[in-house]
Amino acid sequence: MPKIVRFHRLGGPEELRLEEAAPETPQAGEVRIRVQAVGLNNSEAQLRRGDYPMLKASFPSRIGRECAGIVDAVAPDVESIRVGDLVSTIPAFDIQRNGVYGDWCVVPQAAIVRVPPGMGRIEAAAVWQQYLTAYGPLVEYGRADERHVVLITAGASSVGLGAIQMAKSLGCKVVATTRSAGKTGVIRRAGADHVIVTETERLASSILDATGGKGFDLALDPIAGPGLEALAASAASGATIFLYGQLAPEPTPFPLVSVMRKGLSIRGYTLWEITLDPARRERAVRFICDGLETKRLQPIIDRVFDLSDIVAAHRYLESGRQAGKIVVTT
Amino acid sequence: MPKIVRFHRLGGPEELRLEEAAPETPQAGEVRIRVQAVGLNNSEAQLRRGDYPMLKASFPSRIGRECAGIVDAVAPDVESIRVGDLVSTIPAFDIQRNGVYGDWCVVPQAAIVRVPPGMGRIEAAAVWQQYLTAYGPLVEYGRADERHVVLITAGASSVGLGAIQMAKSLGCKVVATTRSAGKTGVIRRAGADHVIVTETERLASSILDATGGKGFDLALDPIAGPGLEALAASAASGATIFLYGQLAPEPTPFPLVSVMRKGLSIRGYTLWEITLDPARRERAVRFICDGLETKRLQPIIDRVFDLSDIVAAHRYLESGRQAGKIVVTT
Repeated sequence: MPKIVRFHRLGGPEELRLEEAAPETPQAGEVRIRVQAVGLNNSEAQLRRGDYPMLKASFPSRIGRECAGIVDAVAPDVESIRVGDLVSTIPAFDIQRNGVYGDWCVVPQAAIVRVPPGMGRIEAAAVWQQYLTAYGPLVEYGRADERHVVLITAGASSVGLGAIQMAKSLGCKVVATTRSAGKTGVIRRAGADHVIVTETERLASSILDATGGKGFDLALDPIAGPGLEALAASAASGATIFLYGQLAPEPTPFPLVSVMRKGLSIRGYTLWEITLDPARRERAVRFICDGLETKRLQPIIDRVFDLSDIVAAHRYLESGRQAGKIVVTT
Repeated sequence: MPKIVRFHRLGGPEELRLEEAAPETPQAGEVRIRVQAVGLNNSEAQLRRGDYPMLKASFPSRIGRECAGIVDAVAPDVESIRVGDLVSTIPAFDIQRNGVYGDWCVVPQAAIVRVPPGMGRIEAAAVWQQYLTAYGPLVEYGRADERHVVLITAGASSVGLGAIQMAKSLGCKVVATTRSAGKTGVIRRAGADHVIVTETERLASSILDATGGKGFDLALDPIAGPGLEALAASAASGATIFLYGQLAPEPTPFPLVSVMRKGLSIRGYTLWEITLDPARRERAVRFICDGLETKRLQPIIDRVFDLSDIVAAHRYLESGRQAGKIVVTT
């Protein structure tokens, strides 16, 4: 009997249960996937713990937004996708109902993208969350190019590494941060021009040093919290800081004086702005597929777990030891 | 002997001293004005008290940025302005050295605009701070038009009333706030479609009610502080909140969840972005002069004091009882 992952209450990784469940029949507009690989995301650990700012779980809840696999059933009204297609999912659906951790999932056809030729199932499960998150701030809104200095905090996260690759492909100068010195290698290999280790360096002055005193023009930050003050202090005049997460446990004081003095914009962002708008999504998918084909974008995989070890995989996700994507295979 | 206003330490209105001082000779690029009227601004009371976020005073300090009067001396290199011209000042200079409270002031020629024909000296001293502050968010950056709902907080302040007039001239729907019910009349007469009295109404739900649940697209807020949460809660998706001051004494918590969920931008702003950029300033001056000539923009004067009553004028400025501009005449 196939298995799916669900949780029945908030808590630690051990709340994730591998449960037998017969595959559901796709409803109108839906597609069923025989899942081969699942990409894990920090927001999924937050949802399980109950500190995901964007959604509170109701129970029982499926979980997971990113997978690759083979289509094995489609609703009668679905014409553009066929049984047997190798596909991956864009995070654009109800994670609780359509969650993808497991041997099967059912998702809206609008969330399906064919896997580019030559790409393996593990890499294919590590594409959309990271590159779509980076795409909005860098391309759709920021229109970043060789004139821009881009700051990427949490640079060794999957989104961080993906954003570094994308910013370099656009010609930007890239400064990235990481907590500990152990991850500077992978961040440099992803293309960062300068890496700041926040455990041992002062963030604001290091950013200013790395940019010749000018500061950054665009920042992508999933942390927020008190560190926002240092970002505002090291931003160039007119810079925009995109906040796309809340990893810091502390509240976020608003750095009003720097923000006024330098005319800064602090912009909230989630990839839903891209995934839920058909025109933006189409532009984004084309841009990212082009980057994958030309190898300017290459998912970086940290470690692969078996689905039966999902609890260990989430424990590792929470450890912060990874650099790049954690993938679970069935 | 002519007099100027200076202060020698931080403190209350009584720190403003009317001191005899012979007119200084303009240095290169400077113009001297025989001042006839001075417009007062909240930021000047903040500078005097020591809680102006943008500048700390050094002593002795002149004060004031906005005046109207007759040019009575120009530096030899100044060609475009002549002795005898009726002019007013754009706030684009060092307030401590070039402050305009007094019988005379010396300011850079770049800060001088000729008073439009037919405009009195009192109104001419009440133009630039309010309309230039409103111009950036509404015109230069916000490109506001009839599709936009604009929220103006502190609606009875001089900038608030000026912004209401400007937003209406652009075709926007305007919702304004004020602390007490006594000022709703002047706010409505300035053109606001809806006035919210924050002492008795809940800000977020009132804004949503006034906009049919949609929320505002652009906000101009000089208050910041804890009220920013209510603004974020009542913003439409994709809205921008321009913060141009810090009237609230409390810190400003950053409303991260609303900001991410709705893709909001919180943008710091000072009119220096307009006044210190020649191209922007030229566009702004043309736009505002056009509005003054066609009467779409009409400075609202609350009360006029004599220069000898400058302490009383500042006391009144701090009382919060005014609706519109306080002007001091010589």
